[in-house]
Amino acid sequence: MSITRRDLLRNIGIAGGTGVMFSSMGALGLNPAALAAQTPPFTPLDKNALRGHGKRSVVVMGGGIAGMTTAYELLKGGYDVTVLEGRDRPGGRNWTVRGGDRYTDLDGNRQRAAFSKGEYMNTGPGRIPQMHVTLDYCKELGVDLEVFNNQNADAFLYREGDHGLDGEAVRHRAAKADVYGYTSELLAKATDQGALDAYVTDSDKEQLIAFLRGFGDLGDKVDGDPAASFAYTGTSRRGYEVQPGAGRESGVETTPYALSDVLASGVGRYFSFEFGFDQAMVMLQPVGGMDRIAYALADAIGRRHFRYGTEVVAYRNTADGVEVSYRQGGATRTITADFAVNTIPPHLAAEIPSNLPSEVIAALRSAQVSNAGKLGIEYDRRWWEEDYRIYGGISNADTDLSNIWHPSYGYHGDKGVMIGYYNTGGDADSYGALTPDRRLQRAVAQGRKIFGDVYTQGITASFSQNWARAPFSEGAWVHWRDQNGADYERLLEPTGNIHFAGDHLSHAIAWQHGAMVSARAVVARIQERVAAS
Amino acid sequence: MSITRRDLLRNIGIAGGTGVMFSSMGALGLNPAALAAQTPPFTPLDKNALRGHGKRSVVVMGGGIAGMTTAYELLKGGYDVTVLEGRDRPGGRNWTVRGGDRYTDLDGNRQRAAFSKGEYMNTGPGRIPQMHVTLDYCKELGVDLEVFNNQNADAFLYREGDHGLDGEAVRHRAAKADVYGYTSELLAKATDQGALDAYVTDSDKEQLIAFLRGFGDLGDKVDGDPAASFAYTGTSRRGYEVQPGAGRESGVETTPYALSDVLASGVGRYFSFEFGFDQAMVMLQPVGGMDRIAYALADAIGRRHFRYGTEVVAYRNTADGVEVSYRQGGATRTITADFAVNTIPPHLAAEIPSNLPSEVIAALRSAQVSNAGKLGIEYDRRWWEEDYRIYGGISNADTDLSNIWHPSYGYHGDKGVMIGYYNTGGDADSYGALTPDRRLQRAVAQGRKIFGDVYTQGITASFSQNWARAPFSEGAWVHWRDQNGADYERLLEPTGNIHFAGDHLSHAIAWQHGAMVSARAVVARIQERVAAS
Repeated sequence: MSITRRDLLRNIGIAGGTGVMFSSMGALGLNPAALAAQTPPFTPLDKNALRGHGKRSVVVMGGGIAGMTTAYELLKGGYDVTVLEGRDRPGGRNWTVRGGDRYTDLDGNRQRAAFSKGEYMNTGPGRIPQMHVTLDYCKELGVDLEVFNNQNADAFLYREGDHGLDGEAVRHRAAKADVYGYTSELLAKATDQGALDAYVTDSDKEQLIAFLRGFGDLGDKVDGDPAASFAYTGTSRRGYEVQPGAGRESGVETTPYALSDVLASGVGRYFSFEFGFDQAMVMLQPVGGMDRIAYALADAIGRRHFRYGTEVVAYRNTADGVEVSYRQGGATRTITADFAVNTIPPHLAAEIPSNLPSEVIAALRSAQVSNAGKLGIEYDRRWWEEDYRIYGGISNADTDLSNIWHPSYGYHGDKGVMIGYYNTGGDADSYGALTPDRRLQRAVAQGRKIFGDVYTQGITASFSQNWARAPFSEGAWVHWRDQNGADYERLLEPTGNIHFAGDHLSHAIAWQHGAMVSARAVVARIQERVAAS
Repeated sequence: MSITRRDLLRNIGIAGGTGVMFSSMGALGLNPAALAAQTPPFTPLDKNALRGHGKRSVVVMGGGIAGMTTAYELLKGGYDVTVLEGRDRPGGRNWTVRGGDRYTDLDGNRQRAAFSKGEYMNTGPGRIPQMHVTLDYCKELGVDLEVFNNQNADAFLYREGDHGLDGEAVRHRAAKADVYGYTSELLAKATDQGALDAYVTDSDKEQLIAFLRGFGDLGDKVDGDPAASFAYTGTSRRGYEVQPGAGRESGVETTPYALSDVLASGVGRYFSFEFGFDQAMVMLQPVGGMDRIAYALADAIGRRHFRYGTEVVAYRNTADGVEVSYRQGGATRTITADFAVNTIPPHLAAEIPSNLPSEVIAALRSAQVSNAGKLGIEYDRRWWEEDYRIYGGISNADTDLSNIWHPSYGYHGDKGVMIGYYNTGGDADSYGALTPDRRLQRAVAQGRKIFGDVYTQGITASFSQNWARAPFSEGAWVHWRDQNGADYERLLEPTGNIHFAGDHLSHAIAWQHGAMVSARAVVARIQERVAAS
């Protein structure tokens, strides 16, 4: 029987929705340069994975993305899987809040979201890069996707400080045109004047100047007048006071900011975000909220494998497996299994009684916890679209708001939910220390500086999350002092029959991709042990 | 009765979906800097616009976007409107082709599109910028929107020539990282070495170097070694051979191209497209095909105002109005009205018998016709997503294909329609001269050089359009030798009771926005005449 090239591709992972292996693709004659950004290969377990090895059971501690991916993949191989999840929903930090949702944090802040029907906010992850395996699971599980606008030329940059752009809401497009214009002018001048002759050939110089003239929308070289040569004096790329229209309306262009102001404001430092590896467009989101992934995984796993509302209170290796105790309602129960996969955040997992060796507990404790906060504000009209012509995307401020997200769904609808802040670290802590009402007040006062009075009007609902004080998370994500260090390495290895998984054990921390690939690695490792037994 | 600020905003145009006036917004205390890119104001006709002036009739020549916008806006004011359209559908160049559609061009090429259910190609306009009034009509008419990916870091740039990137499919992200890296390195060196001291202050220099180090992902300054300072040696922004994954998989970074190759290939010249005024993200498209706008306009106008399948064969000013003759089936009929709005492409309008003065006919003839071609290819799987992780966006080649569009809808579906080429001028002519089958063959051979064998496999349908030979269009768009010249100016003025409208009479040529604002200008002008009569 002959195997077509396509069958072969499917066999090495596409059919399973589990990523594509670089080297295999190269071997099949595709353009290898084309295939950067590929996912390490993973072969899902065969349904006969346990044939000849008897029944094997795994208890998964935590029903977030890592835990559910673990359960989902183990079930493909016929394992007996039980997921213990403290919350009454799947997903962990993948949490979409809708109207009617209730929440109490560890500080006792009680909120009931009053968002309108169809409106939501993703309190945790909100975007997915093209190359992440998260998309493969969306495909495999039938989660519909739409574009998340991580970049919008008409959104704002807002910078305060001792410079000419202080307190001014600057369109991304204007900032970019000015920064690219001035830097192109300077580099064209230096190149033309021979300042870079040690580094570039004559042919390079010619090509470089041709590139810069287009990139910066520069003027001509003025013979004998270096100062006037290649001048940046503005461009339509900045946008218009009045845009081009009918008849004689050729448009009224805007005036560039001064070079020193543009540089001193630091607006240009934002741009590299937009071409970062995991932030460059195209990015995607599930239609209807990020938790569509969580619920799709939960549905695929099946209700009978979940125990919600269970708090793990002890776990230990035994002679031939593991024992995990949990509290549910008033009662404490113990479950035994051949293996445990511990996806509980490391700083919390360290504090649950166990018989883990002290160096493993120390390794768990060595995780550095980061905070992040998000505020959703529902408005009774989509003024960012109507007044500012901003359809999704991020406005960025150097105030404590950091990032304001304009919604990438529901365009032209009656209402909309903006993310009023997505901040981290000290800013998240400082908003988190306030009551939800005060968070909204403060964020609205800060946002008004960027968007004007409209920011204060027609607010119909809001909800905020302070991840540092979220039950079962107590943090947004963790990082490591040294990701090649002994602590991190120790958690990659199982301790007896207890394995660890989570985005924190990947090089894609704070991404669902990280949780998923970590889970896959543990699934492969467990199967390896079983196969060798 | 007090008027709230919001009522006021609604009164000046938002409620009518007709754009926002810059000066009014400024007067209301919003941040004026924030309000660039606004649309010139337009006040839709009041339903009592004709009160005291009697019944007024307008015949609209052409049921494209300009003609339908004219009809739609005139009907608001109670005018008696008849649209004459040569085709059997509304929209003109706004044409979405789906499975089952039949088409014969002026060269006798017959095609029947065999696209699968749910698949389509936009043969004409395919994207809408945020500030275009096209979106206001979408809102007013209830046309749902989704994002059009005009930019994708993982799509390809393909350049042939005497340079190191010849024939290599380069990811946008890699090209951008290298161009930004090397230019940042050069400018940082020149700045640090004092080559630009005549143009920048010490403080500017410090800020500039700080910006460049981030923007280019550069190395440190090496004291006493200018050549080694601020070196660009690659960056994760290029993408990975193997992307970051679980455990110890920190990712395998890719290697930059050489500076001279990057410059000589010209890849960097593409980038300014992405931050052009009317091409910068976010861009949008109607859900289900661009013709959702055409059909929404047609529905709003009402079937009784349309005469489809009518070819205008003569038109003339009369003593008190206009007379337009058209052929329908075998018969020729004449319609009279108070006014005509002629939206027929100028080079075609010039050749239809009329009593227009010779200088007006000369003005119509002075339009320079441009061609454009598009080819849709349906594949039986979305290999650009599955194999290349490209979710929508544009791959660009310096071959005769010019632009390849990866579809911005139907992500993860079973099939998909790529735009195999969107080219203009000579490339469009040269493909247009071929039969549809040969166009596909040639485009596939060219595309294979970029994407490999996969480009040739699993093709289930295709359709191509050569606008130069499209009945009733005979061109993609027109431009003017001098848009401030006498010919253009002459067509902005009515000739008797005949007005001219179309994107060609705007500063947004080849955009639906141009057609719409031109139509609005004519509607306002006609109403002005009626009111003064």
